[in-house]
Amino acid sequence: MWENMPAIKLELDEFEQALQLQFSSKRNINSYLDRLSLGIIKSGGKRLRPAMLIAAAMAGEYDRESAFGAAVSIELLHTATLVHDDIIDNAHVRRGMPTVSASRGAKTAVFTGDYIYVKSILALASAGLPVEYMQKVAQAVEAVCVGEVEQFEGRGSIPGFKTYLSRISRKTAALFAASCAVGAHIGKLPEEAVKRAARFGGYFGIAFQIMDDLLDINNDQNTIGKPVGNDLKEGTVTLPVLIAAAKDKALRRILGSCLKGGSIKNTGRSIARIINMTKESGAVSDAQAIMSRYIAKAKAQLEKLPDSAGKEALKEITRITFRDYNQE
Amino acid sequence: MWENMPAIKLELDEFEQALQLQFSSKRNINSYLDRLSLGIIKSGGKRLRPAMLIAAAMAGEYDRESAFGAAVSIELLHTATLVHDDIIDNAHVRRGMPTVSASRGAKTAVFTGDYIYVKSILALASAGLPVEYMQKVAQAVEAVCVGEVEQFEGRGSIPGFKTYLSRISRKTAALFAASCAVGAHIGKLPEEAVKRAARFGGYFGIAFQIMDDLLDINNDQNTIGKPVGNDLKEGTVTLPVLIAAAKDKALRRILGSCLKGGSIKNTGRSIARIINMTKESGAVSDAQAIMSRYIAKAKAQLEKLPDSAGKEALKEITRITFRDYNQE
Repeated sequence: MWENMPAIKLELDEFEQALQLQFSSKRNINSYLDRLSLGIIKSGGKRLRPAMLIAAAMAGEYDRESAFGAAVSIELLHTATLVHDDIIDNAHVRRGMPTVSASRGAKTAVFTGDYIYVKSILALASAGLPVEYMQKVAQAVEAVCVGEVEQFEGRGSIPGFKTYLSRISRKTAALFAASCAVGAHIGKLPEEAVKRAARFGGYFGIAFQIMDDLLDINNDQNTIGKPVGNDLKEGTVTLPVLIAAAKDKALRRILGSCLKGGSIKNTGRSIARIINMTKESGAVSDAQAIMSRYIAKAKAQLEKLPDSAGKEALKEITRITFRDYNQE
Repeated sequence: MWENMPAIKLELDEFEQALQLQFSSKRNINSYLDRLSLGIIKSGGKRLRPAMLIAAAMAGEYDRESAFGAAVSIELLHTATLVHDDIIDNAHVRRGMPTVSASRGAKTAVFTGDYIYVKSILALASAGLPVEYMQKVAQAVEAVCVGEVEQFEGRGSIPGFKTYLSRISRKTAALFAASCAVGAHIGKLPEEAVKRAARFGGYFGIAFQIMDDLLDINNDQNTIGKPVGNDLKEGTVTLPVLIAAAKDKALRRILGSCLKGGSIKNTGRSIARIINMTKESGAVSDAQAIMSRYIAKAKAQLEKLPDSAGKEALKEITRITFRDYNQE
């Protein structure tokens, strides 16, 4: 996706090496955990958070070493939360590959995630960030944990839009916001611009999660390497479904009885039915409209940043990320 | 256990407040996770690692603020690994209380552990330690992850003594070593003394794990709030059992057939039989002798530290910790 952004592509190629080096240094004491971790890291991921951090840093005075340290740390934090998320969701496939949890058992998956967390802390400690920014990153992960648990504890019930928004702000948007803020800080942008970069990342992250929700309803398995209806199967009511439920009393009743106990019984048939009713209600395009509104909010924050190659890169990243979905 | 050490007791009382404050500050965004975390923290633990860190810091120029920051961080890291360990061991009880994993499910347990990790990073970031010491702490947790996975992957086979020692050095001793090294560093002891403190902590930790192994063979459930034979049930061959197996061919055969597939089938009877054969072989006192040797090594390191109240406290902590088991 980086063809139109040679500067970002170059940095991301170098970044990839810095990322993988965390699991191949001679100091490492366990090749098994390194191999497992590398396998996860190499299996994909668009490196969206590192790209945004690097682009935000390029909006000011770019310092590769600090930017890479922070970007490695954030990508590893993101990866660790995915590994842990897979344990619980009983996800057997991620990025088209079997999950550690499915192939090696929950114990190895938990400690592989922890190991990746530790590598992230080590990268963060060497990035030379002031304590305040280390705290920002840690607080973003704190938000991810809270968002994940809120979603899990709320499973089986239909959230209101406000609850939904607060959850995804934590579960997904916080780490995008931290990526952009830390990047802008590394680029020595003024405090006001750092805040703006954080807001941009936050709105971007909300739109990103809504897109993910839409993919869970719309896409077929082969495109994203993850089965459709997976959220529902885990008892998580996503944006299109909650909008449809607000419109359609029959769907509310079906959801209510299916979700009892937290996850959907009788999976295949019930999920297909709920997805069909969601599509028929028009909720998919409602959710798309909300997503587009957040993309517009994100862009508005960007516009107010001083002109720079980094700002253009952030615009392009936004355009490409949402190009198949954004209707504006 | 701190009656004879009023200085340590006073600090630990204050420390307890600092520890609990991590989960009750107004900034916190999720009272549910805070309540769960506080429940785990209040349910016990002897605060041995914080006590050793504080005592090591008292061996030099004691600085409470830095010592508390680091001690909070290390106790939380330890707690987080326990929460994650419980997920996998299917442990239903820890410190006499139901585990998060048993009462709230694996997802909540994984992210509660992650949340406690994050709080630990926040405490560490505010402790004002140089990057090098933050890395020491992170590397100790890295070792814990590696040790846990090594033990899990090695389940179902009988390790040699060297493999066993390397595993417990990582799983248990590394965090004790880091506690003492960081404490000594905070107390501004010279580099040589910091290294000595680390070695003391490492030997202490090995002895501590052997004692834990012995408790899994010897103690009854009520005393330690954790069922006997739990390690075996998970397919982990501890020191007394591996010594007994080396002596007794029949036990090797039984272990071999019971451990197939990683954990012991037919649990109750097989475990009782293995424990009995272990006791009859004299391996319990062999393991005790090895433990005593490590206690002696730990004490020898301590002796070479300059005299101070902190050094006396570390001696007393060692004496009290092992008083029921050490035969010297």
